[in-house]
Amino acid sequence: MQPNYFDQYRTLKLTRDTSGVLVVEFHSNGGPCTFSALHHTEVVDAFHRIAQDRANKIVVLTGAAGDFIIGVDWGSFGDVADPGMWSQIHDEGTQVLENIANIRVPVIAAIEGRAHIHSEYALLANVIVAAEGATFQDVGHYAAGVVPGDGIFTTWSYRAGAGRAEAFLLNPQPLSARTAYEWGVVAEVVANGKALSRARELATVYLKAPEVTRRNTRVHFIQPLKERILREVGYGLSLEGASAADLLKSMPAKSEPAARTAKSA
Amino acid sequence: MQPNYFDQYRTLKLTRDTSGVLVVEFHSNGGPCTFSALHHTEVVDAFHRIAQDRANKIVVLTGAAGDFIIGVDWGSFGDVADPGMWSQIHDEGTQVLENIANIRVPVIAAIEGRAHIHSEYALLANVIVAAEGATFQDVGHYAAGVVPGDGIFTTWSYRAGAGRAEAFLLNPQPLSARTAYEWGVVAEVVANGKALSRARELATVYLKAPEVTRRNTRVHFIQPLKERILREVGYGLSLEGASAADLLKSMPAKSEPAARTAKSA
Amino acid sequence: MQPNYFDQYRTLKLTRDTSGVLVVEFHSNGGPCTFSALHHTEVVDAFHRIAQDRANKIVVLTGAAGDFIIGVDWGSFGDVADPGMWSQIHDEGTQVLENIANIRVPVIAAIEGRAHIHSEYALLANVIVAAEGATFQDVGHYAAGVVPGDGIFTTWSYRAGAGRAEAFLLNPQPLSARTAYEWGVVAEVVANGKALSRARELATVYLKAPEVTRRNTRVHFIQPLKERILREVGYGLSLEGASAADLLKSMPAKSEPAARTAKSA
Amino acid sequence: MQPNYFDQYRTLKLTRDTSGVLVVEFHSNGGPCTFSALHHTEVVDAFHRIAQDRANKIVVLTGAAGDFIIGVDWGSFGDVADPGMWSQIHDEGTQVLENIANIRVPVIAAIEGRAHIHSEYALLANVIVAAEGATFQDVGHYAAGVVPGDGIFTTWSYRAGAGRAEAFLLNPQPLSARTAYEWGVVAEVVANGKALSRARELATVYLKAPEVTRRNTRVHFIQPLKERILREVGYGLSLEGASAADLLKSMPAKSEPAARTAKSA
Amino acid sequence: MQPNYFDQYRTLKLTRDTSGVLVVEFHSNGGPCTFSALHHTEVVDAFHRIAQDRANKIVVLTGAAGDFIIGVDWGSFGDVADPGMWSQIHDEGTQVLENIANIRVPVIAAIEGRAHIHSEYALLANVIVAAEGATFQDVGHYAAGVVPGDGIFTTWSYRAGAGRAEAFLLNPQPLSARTAYEWGVVAEVVANGKALSRARELATVYLKAPEVTRRNTRVHFIQPLKERILREVGYGLSLEGASAADLLKSMPAKSEPAARTAKSA
Amino acid sequence: MQPNYFDQYRTLKLTRDTSGVLVVEFHSNGGPCTFSALHHTEVVDAFHRIAQDRANKIVVLTGAAGDFIIGVDWGSFGDVADPGMWSQIHDEGTQVLENIANIRVPVIAAIEGRAHIHSEYALLANVIVAAEGATFQDVGHYAAGVVPGDGIFTTWSYRAGAGRAEAFLLNPQPLSARTAYEWGVVAEVVANGKALSRARELATVYLKAPEVTRRNTRVHFIQPLKERILREVGYGLSLEGASAADLLKSMPAKSEPAARTAKSA
Repeated sequence: MQPNYFDQYRTLKLTRDTSGVLVVEFHSNGGPCTFSALHHTEVVDAFHRIAQDRANKIVVLTGAAGDFIIGVDWGSFGDVADPGMWSQIHDEGTQVLENIANIRVPVIAAIEGRAHIHSEYALLANVIVAAEGATFQDVGHYAAGVVPGDGIFTTWSYRAGAGRAEAFLLNPQPLSARTAYEWGVVAEVVANGKALSRARELATVYLKAPEVTRRNTRVHFIQPLKERILREVGYGLSLEGASAADLLKSMPAKSEPAARTAKSA
Repeated sequence: MQPNYFDQYRTLKLTRDTSGVLVVEFHSNGGPCTFSALHHTEVVDAFHRIAQDRANKIVVLTGAAGDFIIGVDWGSFGDVADPGMWSQIHDEGTQVLENIANIRVPVIAAIEGRAHIHSEYALLANVIVAAEGATFQDVGHYAAGVVPGDGIFTTWSYRAGAGRAEAFLLNPQPLSARTAYEWGVVAEVVANGKALSRARELATVYLKAPEVTRRNTRVHFIQPLKERILREVGYGLSLEGASAADLLKSMPAKSEPAARTAKSA
Repeated sequence: MQPNYFDQYRTLKLTRDTSGVLVVEFHSNGGPCTFSALHHTEVVDAFHRIAQDRANKIVVLTGAAGDFIIGVDWGSFGDVADPGMWSQIHDEGTQVLENIANIRVPVIAAIEGRAHIHSEYALLANVIVAAEGATFQDVGHYAAGVVPGDGIFTTWSYRAGAGRAEAFLLNPQPLSARTAYEWGVVAEVVANGKALSRARELATVYLKAPEVTRRNTRVHFIQPLKERILREVGYGLSLEGASAADLLKSMPAKSEPAARTAKSA
Repeated sequence: MQPNYFDQYRTLKLTRDTSGVLVVEFHSNGGPCTFSALHHTEVVDAFHRIAQDRANKIVVLTGAAGDFIIGVDWGSFGDVADPGMWSQIHDEGTQVLENIANIRVPVIAAIEGRAHIHSEYALLANVIVAAEGATFQDVGHYAAGVVPGDGIFTTWSYRAGAGRAEAFLLNPQPLSARTAYEWGVVAEVVANGKALSRARELATVYLKAPEVTRRNTRVHFIQPLKERILREVGYGLSLEGASAADLLKSMPAKSEPAARTAKSA
Repeated sequence: MQPNYFDQYRTLKLTRDTSGVLVVEFHSNGGPCTFSALHHTEVVDAFHRIAQDRANKIVVLTGAAGDFIIGVDWGSFGDVADPGMWSQIHDEGTQVLENIANIRVPVIAAIEGRAHIHSEYALLANVIVAAEGATFQDVGHYAAGVVPGDGIFTTWSYRAGAGRAEAFLLNPQPLSARTAYEWGVVAEVVANGKALSRARELATVYLKAPEVTRRNTRVHFIQPLKERILREVGYGLSLEGASAADLLKSMPAKSEPAARTAKSA
Repeated sequence: MQPNYFDQYRTLKLTRDTSGVLVVEFHSNGGPCTFSALHHTEVVDAFHRIAQDRANKIVVLTGAAGDFIIGVDWGSFGDVADPGMWSQIHDEGTQVLENIANIRVPVIAAIEGRAHIHSEYALLANVIVAAEGATFQDVGHYAAGVVPGDGIFTTWSYRAGAGRAEAFLLNPQPLSARTAYEWGVVAEVVANGKALSRARELATVYLKAPEVTRRNTRVHFIQPLKERILREVGYGLSLEGASAADLLKSMPAKSEPAARTAKSA
């Protein structure tokens, strides 16, 4: 019954109910998602197919096991100072954001626990529901020694304002769901464990609108952010790639790169 | 003494004091304004003439009888699924926002009661004064089954931030003047019944600046929003038109369109 | 040891510690800075050289003697109604903002006391630290009879939102550091007298990132604001120049221009 | 039968045939058009009404008595160094281009003789038909001592390329219809005296498309140029205004301004 | 040996040589391509996969049997006045252009015969090689009664200039390869039958550059056009959809739509 | 008499006549200019000072000894695969184009012989005069194995059209002055040896306009290109940097880099 792409990804669990609400769960072996190179490649293809499949009426993005995304498996990316390797990161990194932006039905993010890596995926949703205990942070960039160039600045700047985004990314501290709500990033704060169920309730409301209304509302709402992504993220990833090469060069040759320990414990 | 266009509109009352402060009241037969096709056509011409008339030194936008705009007279628009009819809505809808943007003197909105339709007109003002009991809502789009594409997203996104705007428009609830103030949309909250008088006070202050200063300050402040209107609203209205056609198609043939009941009671 | 440009400016004090943190102090004869034509010319050159000097690892902008910038020495600018004089103001005024934007290392503003003129320089920083008693105001434009066209609107609109910026600039009142924090403009509020020391602490944190990371993060963060500056500030200054000419024309011939008293006492 | 605005302008002759083809003729007392302050004011209103009148199915722009526009009546504009006077020129000058751009049906320009002033009006058409002997020149700007800032650069740069436009405007010489054709500006060159009749033939062809197709094709085609107008022309006119003030200042006090002799003989 | 997507499309033939040069042939049952709804859907997926497959080192776009694309199978698209049907055309139509733009290696178009439909696909190549007898035309839009909104204006305007593009699309006549060369659209004109072989020669030259150079050159070159596509094509397709609905409404109920005869014979 | 910066550069000869026409000659030890790292650093500072010096009334860019710029001294740039080294190239490369764009008086390029490297400097002039035997080529990018990302694409695309620019840069061949004239890049072709004298004649003509007119015309004309530079060149240089690293990696370790032989003989 379900489309063949639903079970093609090892890092994403896709489930869709009879009303067409697709839930996309980021995970690592079923547990909390630690982002790896495999995730990076799979999300590009997955979100393209999700966007093309007109049977998806609403899309919900969420994590697994009480968290959104908790860290990065740096080792899986290989030698990020290699220009060919970074070229792939650049190309995939720009493409995945465009593909999420191209989902042409309302997108809701349901955030529990840590959104400490790639929270820009959540900020590409139209509405974010966050549990009381959810936290936002960026453990993968400036604190780890590289430029926050993959869209994390673009999306936070777009939704929270540039001043907050710059300070948040330069001096990263866990940001509570409540503060993110005050900043206009999170639309609703709910009790822990209730983010997904609230997202489903909103989905039910949004489904009352006709198909073209749902699709075109998303198209209209995402357009200004999509333009910013196109103008900023490719360059941002190039700047980040150069910084990653500089970081590796600046590290003692034999030691484990400090960056690789950035994964939040 | 007054220009000949002042008494040419059945849906707008125009009055100007000796200092050049023009007050524009949206109304329906002198009572609270329920927006009709006649309003839609008249505002295009009215705001163009208002903008061209250099005797207008400050413009105040307000409603009548304790409200700003309370609903839509859907029936007056005819068959919105007809491409020729929607073409007119598209053309007028983009033009009126450009014409308000082209008023080249400070614009103040004085909001009492319900700003439940076309609040984007108010958000094209430089400063919004709202009464304590004023509420903002969008009863005419997503809740009624069509895309919020006529500039309501563009202006709310511009002034309140995209995150708030998207949630506000997808899940519309009355927004209090106080919340709109916290969001940076409303500049001042005053006691009920005092919005217009406070707007007049501000007008007196703004009039102290020389003519060119008043005009050019407006030109400078509105430019980024005008660019967004140009880039987003024509497309938005096209997306909305397609959604309106889909809405009508999805309705049982004989029933009264649900959309036509969207007018707030 | 220090570069030769460090002691070339009479209106700016430049000091750099061994880690490369450059502190730029705006002053007038060592006291609080009252902005003059000499400041206007010197900042263009100074910030270009600061930006080109790769030995600057972090840049801190601050004032002197407990204030940031307190007023304008209008008389020093000569006859601003003269097109040749305003051409110079236009050219320098656009150039200085581009030059600050082109500083390609993290920039921190440390604000004590009054930031009542050219607060846009501070808003070009990535992070603003303000003392509890700091206040933001714009005493040099609308209240003085001219258009706020030199970037003050562009930067405040970019960081605080357009609605707040327009009301703030039309109806200028001292804005507390706390309110600026709530608006997302100020990143941290500290005790009076502690802004610069806190800025230095942040500098120490930011210095942990490698050179290219520091530089490219700045490049990435400033890009959207730099685009807005390019598109808005030249035009804004032209509109301001015309308003200044109108202001002078509207003044009684023999009296001292009211604008020249705008300097906050 | 004809709308009441048709006979309200002393500088424009409006005629419409039964198929809805409106011909707009620029003239001066029925002879070749020398552009005056009255033209400048009337075109703003006229093109707004033309654009709003849905009975206009195609619009043709042309001149009178064998020429398009041949010169400027400088004296009619009053003291262009006065900031209030230039404010009016700025506001009208930006508005008229927006209003022509907002004509939402195909626009054809039929050019005979000299298009030596305001040829940007013609370049806002979708298609230009020029007689073999037609010439394009800009006698009103750089050669006369002021900035070509009113849209003449924007439109020529848009249609002919920036390199050609800059040289053409800095070093103005009459440009033949044939060269304008080679540059991609003119679509068809016809025998002298045949431009209008060929424009009418094209109008007949374009009328075969349905109403919405005609309207929306114009909307689609003009959008990129309209964006450029919005971003460039207001600023351009401000820069031109400052240059006009400088020009007057640089002239011997008693002499007739050289600029006023710029009208092509 | 070849990737599994190579044989998944009935309307595209994909072949790749050992050096990584992928040739994409548009066809209809192996003969000249008449564009159908199946093509429209398949190209979206195909070009996404082509873009993601890093084994493609150069991409060549071409037609089959001596032509590029010769016409449209209108009937296959169903009822284009249905908002749901047009929603799919809108979504696919914007997506396919983005996907071709996102091919991150040099793209060469090899054109023989008629490029009379969707020549914008060819104009998304970096270099077009055309046979002497190749012709460009747009038989599917204005001449057929609908808006040229699917990117044909955007790409022709981008490469040939707006003036030429507007006249070409309003008054479509076959344009020779030679004229397209003079307009700067075609890079090389070769003998009939030699377009593909010359494209392969160029591919061999381009392959000498390293992988990242090839990829990043394409990224750099396509960026301005990709921005224009994002800003113009979605809106253009919406305007086209409304015009298609108007066209169908304007046709006598029983007759075969004239539009369906637009296919060039 | 001459400003102190005139004799501070070893790679640029600056001379100014009494009318304020500044001639800037690119050279290498007085002979034809082979671009080195020293040039790259000096041009940033030189063009900033040239732009700030209001005594420069017209600026002419030219080469030395019968050529414009003939090649690159690759070795002088050090290890371009080092992220710190490329960071400097990126920063200087974006800054120099902004600084040339910020020259606020008319700029004329006088081209003799080979403009085979950094011809984008010439394309930042308002008018290019080329000798009959002058040729344009890009020997430093794609043919040498790196991305043409430093503004060469942006400027050629802006002035010649994207189609021509892409083919020219991918498949570089010497382009004659005559062809560049037909493309709209060169404004005038003169006899060999006469480019500079003709540029001086044009300068004399341009000097007739008042100061503000000259300055503001340049400001107006350069604005669209400056916006493109800001949006494209930083990213372009980052993409070029990654390609340079890939090129070096792909070369046999011991051999002399092929790229270093790109200098035209």
